[in-house]
Amino acid sequence: MKIIKGSITAPEGFVASAVQSGIKENKLDLALIVSKTPCVAAGVFTKNVVQAAPVVLSRQRLKRGRAQAIIANSGNANCLNGDKGLKDALEITQIAAGLTGVDKKDVLVASTGVIGKPLAADKIKEAIPRLVKGLNRNGGVLAARAIMTTDIYPKEIAVTVDIRGKTVKIGGIAKGSGMICPDMATMLCFITTDANIALDALKRSLKEASEDSFNAITIDGDMSTNDTVFILANGLAANPRIRYDTDDYRKFSEALSYVTGCLAKEIAMDGEGASKFIEIEVNGAKNKNDARRVAKEIANSNLVKTAIAGEDPNVGRIASAAGAAKVKFKESALDVSLCGIKIIRDGKTDYGLRGRIKNLLKKKDVKIEVDLKCGVSCATVWTCDLTEGYIKINARYN
Amino acid sequence: MKIIKGSITAPEGFVASAVQSGIKENKLDLALIVSKTPCVAAGVFTKNVVQAAPVVLSRQRLKRGRAQAIIANSGNANCLNGDKGLKDALEITQIAAGLTGVDKKDVLVASTGVIGKPLAADKIKEAIPRLVKGLNRNGGVLAARAIMTTDIYPKEIAVTVDIRGKTVKIGGIAKGSGMICPDMATMLCFITTDANIALDALKRSLKEASEDSFNAITIDGDMSTNDTVFILANGLAANPRIRYDTDDYRKFSEALSYVTGCLAKEIAMDGEGASKFIEIEVNGAKNKNDARRVAKEIANSNLVKTAIAGEDPNVGRIASAAGAAKVKFKESALDVSLCGIKIIRDGKTDYGLRGRIKNLLKKKDVKIEVDLKCGVSCATVWTCDLTEGYIKINARYN
Repeated sequence: MKIIKGSITAPEGFVASAVQSGIKENKLDLALIVSKTPCVAAGVFTKNVVQAAPVVLSRQRLKRGRAQAIIANSGNANCLNGDKGLKDALEITQIAAGLTGVDKKDVLVASTGVIGKPLAADKIKEAIPRLVKGLNRNGGVLAARAIMTTDIYPKEIAVTVDIRGKTVKIGGIAKGSGMICPDMATMLCFITTDANIALDALKRSLKEASEDSFNAITIDGDMSTNDTVFILANGLAANPRIRYDTDDYRKFSEALSYVTGCLAKEIAMDGEGASKFIEIEVNGAKNKNDARRVAKEIANSNLVKTAIAGEDPNVGRIASAAGAAKVKFKESALDVSLCGIKIIRDGKTDYGLRGRIKNLLKKKDVKIEVDLKCGVSCATVWTCDLTEGYIKINARYN
Repeated sequence: MKIIKGSITAPEGFVASAVQSGIKENKLDLALIVSKTPCVAAGVFTKNVVQAAPVVLSRQRLKRGRAQAIIANSGNANCLNGDKGLKDALEITQIAAGLTGVDKKDVLVASTGVIGKPLAADKIKEAIPRLVKGLNRNGGVLAARAIMTTDIYPKEIAVTVDIRGKTVKIGGIAKGSGMICPDMATMLCFITTDANIALDALKRSLKEASEDSFNAITIDGDMSTNDTVFILANGLAANPRIRYDTDDYRKFSEALSYVTGCLAKEIAMDGEGASKFIEIEVNGAKNKNDARRVAKEIANSNLVKTAIAGEDPNVGRIASAAGAAKVKFKESALDVSLCGIKIIRDGKTDYGLRGRIKNLLKKKDVKIEVDLKCGVSCATVWTCDLTEGYIKINARYN
């Protein structure tokens, strides 16, 4: 596997573009990705009971396992807008289909932004001709910009992997950056590949790759109504078709997991107001679920996150959050390390180590390790600290 | 029932005092409450796996259902301090017992403050003689001050209730103010009463009263290692003994619930950095558990809490949080009201109502109402907004 430049337009046959439709002021807010040929396609969506119109429509369309284009806007979630919301989403895909020559059922749609605000669908519809006209082989980075909300920088990556002598490319873009929690809240991620791959293999590979990446990040514990991950595979790399549970599958999956892992980490790093990237590793759990649960409880603790923002080695808060996860363990066996220094050993704090940790906390990357000593399962979760910047952003977000 | 002045020293036979032992600088940090005669006593404790030494010791002592004194410090949680922590807690109660003439098994202990910091037990031990000397019938308010951490003001209340011609008094003090979540995190509450009441009746009454008060507040979703509620009943009101499930019991319980409800609301109002008090009422749930779950998910949503801090009627975040609670309901039936105005009706947002709500959000009290329309159960949860003040406090808390 090799990292290459670019993102979703790196794989063969994909073009993209972005424009400012006017939903946001002075910013790109509409993106389009199109494959030259129809693709096998899969998606992962939010588990929120409240689901935005584009989620409802795209989920339905993906039942056929194919797609050829993605249209996405930022600045408005098109959620809780009733029948009008669904109608708008449908019409937007139809117009995009008409102008790109793609079957209308093969256009997926995604939105991100304010929930419950009527969508200025006319602005989007009027902008689609410009959007289609702008489609090009270098459009990935602009598309990555157009889906940003409070993200500070666009997130993109591309890799190549050799599958039986053929160079298969995988590229992805993503946006965060608040409301990110279990099950991928308020994030959009679009992945393209020119791999020739069977639909069931693509589905499983995406699911596995999402599990340890997008489902392992949390910014504020809030799960959104719009989370969406799409993957489109057009087969233009002309490799022998990848089937599930083969060596080719594992090779492809490893590369895909790398792509989703990088994008997920970038989302955590660019969390709203974030000044630190925090990795939480829980070891010694009875099972994976317990490990993940403890890691997420720590990752979602406002007290842990504010302490780290303040570069304060308040490890008691980490232990307290671990204990609040409704997972059984022995307090008298608990180990907690912060920045590589084991400060709680067998449930007892070595308070004198705080000074050394305080120095290490000045770095941007912070690692928390917890050992529950009741099994062999582990999990890693990524998050960021909680700063005054988060409050500023979210008290005035429209 | 009548509200009277004072708190824990209002009921007959209770004295209290507070001193500065030196754990905190220039602030009261040690409190003592003593009853003239032995009491029936009950407690409710944190469900965190990690439990502070005073929690372990007091829980064990309360198995006998009796107590006569409470000693409590702020500034240090005495948690994750290993065997030394337990030994310190034990010795503190023994010294207090010796100097007050109370059976040493009848002294309960509580701590609140930093977790994992060695307890300066010598300072406490040296201060106990002064503490005992200061015991008096008006010591309640000083005790309320001595247990404060980041609380801005002391929380106290007292009421009287007539039980068969006898005036029974109930008084309580409490402290918040961060790390307050499900199951009463980082809160201490001490309640005294001169009621003559059977132990099982007292236990059940306390449990019921805690359920809709201390277990219905959340500040930041963090559950502490030290939460403790104690109730001591010395019987000096000389009423006929209150038995479970009688009219007297209901009368007493109503008064006790009023006391715990007031203290819980004050804790929410005085949450760290809080500028608003938020009441969340969920109706139309299939069962009480679902209702509570949805209410807590909204109450713990950083995005909802920051929006309210910013007086921004971002109701989409409320609906999104409701949908993230892992409780089934129909999005197309969901109603959400903010400040008494129904802005989401049957899953559709009436965006034009935002202006009116924006004005109402300027008030200190904010009410959120959600109707799931799938049953008849309801729940109310209290919380506060999330401001830059919370971050400031918690990034620099030692």
